[in-house]
Amino acid sequence: MNTLAQERRKAEFDVESMKVVWAGSMEQLHLSQRMAHLVANDPVFRKDFRVTQSRPDLFKNTLRKAAHAWKLVQTLRLTEEEATKMRNYIDEPAYTDLHWGMFIPSIKGQGTEVQQQKWLPLAYKQAILGCYAQTELGHGSNVQGLETTATFDPSTDEFIMNTPVLTATKWWPGALGKVATHAVVYARLLTDGKDYGVHAFIVQIRSLEDHQPLPGVIVGDIGVKFGNGGYNTMDNGFLRFNNVRFPRDQMLMRLASVTKEGKYVQSDVPRQLGYGAMVYVRKSIVMDASNYLSRAVTIATRYSAVRRQFGAQGDKPEIQVIDYMTQQSRLFPLLATAYAYRFLGVWMAWLYSDVMARLEKNDFSTLPEVHACTAGLKSITTSTTSDAIEECRKLCGGHGYLCASGLPELYAGYVPACTYEGDNVVLLLQVARFLMKTLSLLGAGKKPAGTAAYLGNVRQLATQNCQVIKGADWLNPTTLQHAFEARSARLAVNCATQIAEASNQEAGFTELSMELVDAARAHCELIVVTRFMEALKRELPGREVKSQLQVLCNIYALSLITARTGDFLVTGYLSHEQIDLAKAKLRDLFRQVRPNAVALVDAFDHSDYYLGSTLGRYDGNVYTNLYNDALKDPMNQSPVTEGYEEFIRPVIKQQLQLSRSKI
Amino acid sequence: MNTLAQERRKAEFDVESMKVVWAGSMEQLHLSQRMAHLVANDPVFRKDFRVTQSRPDLFKNTLRKAAHAWKLVQTLRLTEEEATKMRNYIDEPAYTDLHWGMFIPSIKGQGTEVQQQKWLPLAYKQAILGCYAQTELGHGSNVQGLETTATFDPSTDEFIMNTPVLTATKWWPGALGKVATHAVVYARLLTDGKDYGVHAFIVQIRSLEDHQPLPGVIVGDIGVKFGNGGYNTMDNGFLRFNNVRFPRDQMLMRLASVTKEGKYVQSDVPRQLGYGAMVYVRKSIVMDASNYLSRAVTIATRYSAVRRQFGAQGDKPEIQVIDYMTQQSRLFPLLATAYAYRFLGVWMAWLYSDVMARLEKNDFSTLPEVHACTAGLKSITTSTTSDAIEECRKLCGGHGYLCASGLPELYAGYVPACTYEGDNVVLLLQVARFLMKTLSLLGAGKKPAGTAAYLGNVRQLATQNCQVIKGADWLNPTTLQHAFEARSARLAVNCATQIAEASNQEAGFTELSMELVDAARAHCELIVVTRFMEALKRELPGREVKSQLQVLCNIYALSLITARTGDFLVTGYLSHEQIDLAKAKLRDLFRQVRPNAVALVDAFDHSDYYLGSTLGRYDGNVYTNLYNDALKDPMNQSPVTEGYEEFIRPVIKQQLQLSRSKI
Ligand SMILES: Cc1cc2nc3c(=O)[nH]c(=O)nc-3n(C[C@H](O)[C@H](O)[C@H](O)COP(=O)(O)OP(=O)(O)OC[C@H]3O[C@@H](n4cnc5c(N)ncnc54)[C@H](O)[C@@H]3O)c2cc1C
Ligand SMILES: Cc1cc2nc3c(=O)[nH]c(=O)nc-3n(C[C@H](O)[C@H](O)[C@H](O)COP(=O)(O)OP(=O)(O)OC[C@H]3O[C@@H](n4cnc5c(N)ncnc54)[C@H](O)[C@@H]3O)c2cc1C
Ligand SMILES: [Ca+2]
Repeated sequence: MNTLAQERRKAEFDVESMKVVWAGSMEQLHLSQRMAHLVANDPVFRKDFRVTQSRPDLFKNTLRKAAHAWKLVQTLRLTEEEATKMRNYIDEPAYTDLHWGMFIPSIKGQGTEVQQQKWLPLAYKQAILGCYAQTELGHGSNVQGLETTATFDPSTDEFIMNTPVLTATKWWPGALGKVATHAVVYARLLTDGKDYGVHAFIVQIRSLEDHQPLPGVIVGDIGVKFGNGGYNTMDNGFLRFNNVRFPRDQMLMRLASVTKEGKYVQSDVPRQLGYGAMVYVRKSIVMDASNYLSRAVTIATRYSAVRRQFGAQGDKPEIQVIDYMTQQSRLFPLLATAYAYRFLGVWMAWLYSDVMARLEKNDFSTLPEVHACTAGLKSITTSTTSDAIEECRKLCGGHGYLCASGLPELYAGYVPACTYEGDNVVLLLQVARFLMKTLSLLGAGKKPAGTAAYLGNVRQLATQNCQVIKGADWLNPTTLQHAFEARSARLAVNCATQIAEASNQEAGFTELSMELVDAARAHCELIVVTRFMEALKRELPGREVKSQLQVLCNIYALSLITARTGDFLVTGYLSHEQIDLAKAKLRDLFRQVRPNAVALVDAFDHSDYYLGSTLGRYDGNVYTNLYNDALKDPMNQSPVTEGYEEFIRPVIKQQLQLSRSKI
Repeated sequence: MNTLAQERRKAEFDVESMKVVWAGSMEQLHLSQRMAHLVANDPVFRKDFRVTQSRPDLFKNTLRKAAHAWKLVQTLRLTEEEATKMRNYIDEPAYTDLHWGMFIPSIKGQGTEVQQQKWLPLAYKQAILGCYAQTELGHGSNVQGLETTATFDPSTDEFIMNTPVLTATKWWPGALGKVATHAVVYARLLTDGKDYGVHAFIVQIRSLEDHQPLPGVIVGDIGVKFGNGGYNTMDNGFLRFNNVRFPRDQMLMRLASVTKEGKYVQSDVPRQLGYGAMVYVRKSIVMDASNYLSRAVTIATRYSAVRRQFGAQGDKPEIQVIDYMTQQSRLFPLLATAYAYRFLGVWMAWLYSDVMARLEKNDFSTLPEVHACTAGLKSITTSTTSDAIEECRKLCGGHGYLCASGLPELYAGYVPACTYEGDNVVLLLQVARFLMKTLSLLGAGKKPAGTAAYLGNVRQLATQNCQVIKGADWLNPTTLQHAFEARSARLAVNCATQIAEASNQEAGFTELSMELVDAARAHCELIVVTRFMEALKRELPGREVKSQLQVLCNIYALSLITARTGDFLVTGYLSHEQIDLAKAKLRDLFRQVRPNAVALVDAFDHSDYYLGSTLGRYDGNVYTNLYNDALKDPMNQSPVTEGYEEFIRPVIKQQLQLSRSKI
């Protein structure tokens, strides 16, 4: 009896069509499959021994993989899109992430045409390898507080870069520690006797001949990070400058420049142009979230179907743990969330193109809203996804704690997404500021737009309570939409009211930060729910594909409502009875998902190689593989352990040298 | 300017007295200090290179530490209490945990007098090393489903142990993989043609001469677990039996035995006696929770005082991040929780002695209540503590993600406590069963006792709403107590009512599992709040010690109320205004804790060695030490990385061999 095969037979929808929906299009699906296959079948990309390697070996192997991947890119003439996908499937943070994902985009975004022509060709062929050096020991969130200095010296037409204090040491940049030859360095620009604040510079840090750090450059790796593999394949580094000189034209001068006389000149390029890149990055983060979450959910779902515990009766086997209501209540909302984030990511891709089109036309009107919404979505999707990975691990019981489950490393490698590209709490506070501002401008008649448009309706939202009277009402999209809008609007208004009562607005904001964070989260969850519902208004081909997604969308919305009942109840929007109806409806929906659960994770189309999980194997053959893999563990190379003669035998034989001297 | 020294000067209470409260007594404090000092100053116990060692080296070093510790125990003639404390400070899971914590107690609890006399002396002098082999590949939570068999053979007066199927492989027992010579094995007892269910047996698995597995025994390590160090110092193992024979008297026969004719005989020792041990173990788990939580909170509190970000004005430095309300709202409730769990642990020690005294007198009346309450407390304290460690790590921003923060390893090593000794969700379901049972017996006039006594008052609790009308009312212990009792009682009653409406009670229970879990959690949180408030009724010497604890107790209670507003609102117990008052009062309390925060974590008295955290150093000298430690990292042994010639230079120099052949 193959349990997973049985599960697959139960599915009520067309899995192949769902794969297309998940991938975005048939072309995307095929692209993913080709790249996934390429990586999975190449022995250089083996990753199963990742957790038993020492950090130096692990790191060296990552260098090997990167070189091999680069060779494949050239041999197979892969497009940029294919190459990016391939790197994704290699499934290890590596210096190339920073080179392609941060270094090159920084030059594109902040370099002049001339600078781009000089540096990009070198970067594209990887004749130079770059990193993004912003964060310092003393400053991460507060970028304006960076302390590295770049002082212009008109006598030689050069900048002199310095690390004046210990806390100015660059600290964290990936690819910096052992690989990068160049860095985009953020430093305070000092010229003409004045501090012009933080600007970006291209600085060479290692020789292109022998890779030695250049004179005046002190650089290295910052040490081991969370997890065995995880981010330890990356050389997050430190960097100090001791009077390092470089030509003036290595300041990235698209927005501002320094003349050879040392005068600071702002260009007429609007500063807002940078926002486009930020939206793009945040879109990628949300897509990553759905990707990581879908992997964790695949593992937990398949294993929950394979795992049986309790309730054997006569000849009948024990109950599959996926049949326990607690297991479903913990797992299915995460399954729904993976899909929700996918549609959110697709919408953010549209948002990106919309912003870019507007920027072309010097239309900056949507930026505050887009800035806030993408900041918030980065925050909630990464926080939710990290927590969800751990929850999936716990859903696997003891076996989830083994690296063989794939989940510990998935978590350790993912969780810093809560911190980089903006600390998640700091980001939500930015959203909150936007919400307060938006409310305060309502009085002046300013109509909010985009994802904040509902706030224009705040009066109605604050007074009209939920209309649900029977369980089925909870499936009405307008009802759900209204519930999330009312919750968000009411929480925001409650904050605004309390802040208005404070003697000082700023102090009021600070005092209420925690409530503001809750309001910001509510705003962002509304956006996710809305995007999911919107996506389902489109045509979605394939047998019962749309109806399955509809169930997931309802689960997503209702599980948020039941998880955050406080928010909905505090303002009297919902009644006790309505909450109970929501919970009962949710259980109904779980029952509808249940026969489709395994097929719904199959639709993510993750290969066994990519999952890297014995518990999440497609064939469900969990126990044999756990056991066989253990037999191969380095610890089992000999039946008697290393250290027996020195440290175990003397204990058992009462032959320890009993003195105060050390062993 | 030494920030932490300044912080310490702000403290409004006597830290030394608080240390005594935390430790339990002056004697306990001195004991802890002596043992902490002993370990911290012995180079054999170095742990700073833990995360850079390969697993085999790491493991060998753990064997070394264990042998050395055992030598110290004998040389210094340490008492059992001292030895246990010392092992705690060595701060690494090791085989000795199982030997002393599970193997010996099992023999004590389940062995006859004769068996104890035979085995305990050997175990006490570590002439044999034992483990506890219960869980199998296929069964953990469902102990009754274990598949290993012990078949009695009257012809030789022996048991024959077998692993009939793959899923019967023992899997997880600590100390089993590479160290133990003996195991307490749980197996189905087959005799007289009948299956008598799971019983415990002492089985030798390795030779006492050369440590080779005995004939018929297949044993090894199950592989790498979450984290770098973490549980990887432990040899969690697998074990299979192929017709392994051992004498009949190695069945642990206190409760039941097999005669030499093969007849199964139950003894007249009450089966309930085992419960005492369980209460003891759970007490230790709760104490461990407070210990781990206090370590994480120490690190996050000190670093939050040292870390500054944003808001520099003129000459004034930036704001300490501990001054942000979001930081306080996330951190201070965890500080309060650490203290709450401490007092809870103390109460559970009393509960243990109370249960033991009753068992002596064959009084089993309190067992169901004690069983439920300790199961639930194990569950909520371990879940909360693991989440809290990760929250503390995130409170440290990017630097928290470095192993140098100490937090990744603290988490990875702690989190399995959510799974072992009972999966936390399965445990809460047990509590829920008890609650439903208790409610159902009310009708029959059965008065609930102990921690469930309040349920006797269910009618009043279900109808009388909260009396708070101004912020200060929230500090009234009776008010708080009533709030938690009402919440718990109402959630339980709501479940009971819905179950009663179901056609079938069992189906109703299953259907409502998630709500039942919430009710169980509410019951347990009530117990913690109550114990904290009770503890403060005692005399607590030392300047302002009690008033500080009072603030923390109120923070603990109010932060739970504001975190779970849904529970309190859903039944109409609290109003919107009362919640806002609670939140405002909580912010007041945070302000009161703020100047004392660093001193309150100093009172835990954790040494720098024990914390193992650069961010949590007592002297606050974070940045210099982060930097200097990085310089010593193995990755920085040479300026040019290993792998440069093979994998970086060919990329930069465009000299990769471009063919389809592998590198
Ligand atoms: C794996 C990883 C990779 C990285 N890669 C790079 C890289 O390639 N290049 C690079 O330049 N950097 C990189 N970073 C650094 C990263 O960008 C920073 O760690 C991040 O911006 C967070 O800043 P911080 O560490 O200073 O946190 P902090 O700001 O110090 O946060 C500490 C705490 O203070 C709180 N806090 C701070 N400010 C406020 C406020 N105003 N209000 C309320 N609370 C506040 C935070 O919420 C948090 O709880 C990386 C980091 C990691 C972990
Ligand atoms: C670090 C570590 C050390 C250990 N040390 C030892 C040791 O020394 N000796 C030893 O014998 N064992 C040991 N164990 C094993 C441990 O006791 C088991 O892992 C634990 O009991 C959980 O059981 P499980 O793994 O079978 O989880 P499962 O029961 O398989 O849990 C999987 C999922 O099913 C759910 N589930 C299961 N039953 C139900 C139910 N009835 N209702 C609702 N949901 C349910 C759970 O909530 C969970 O989400 C150790 C484990 C770990 C991780
Ligand atoms: Ca390692």
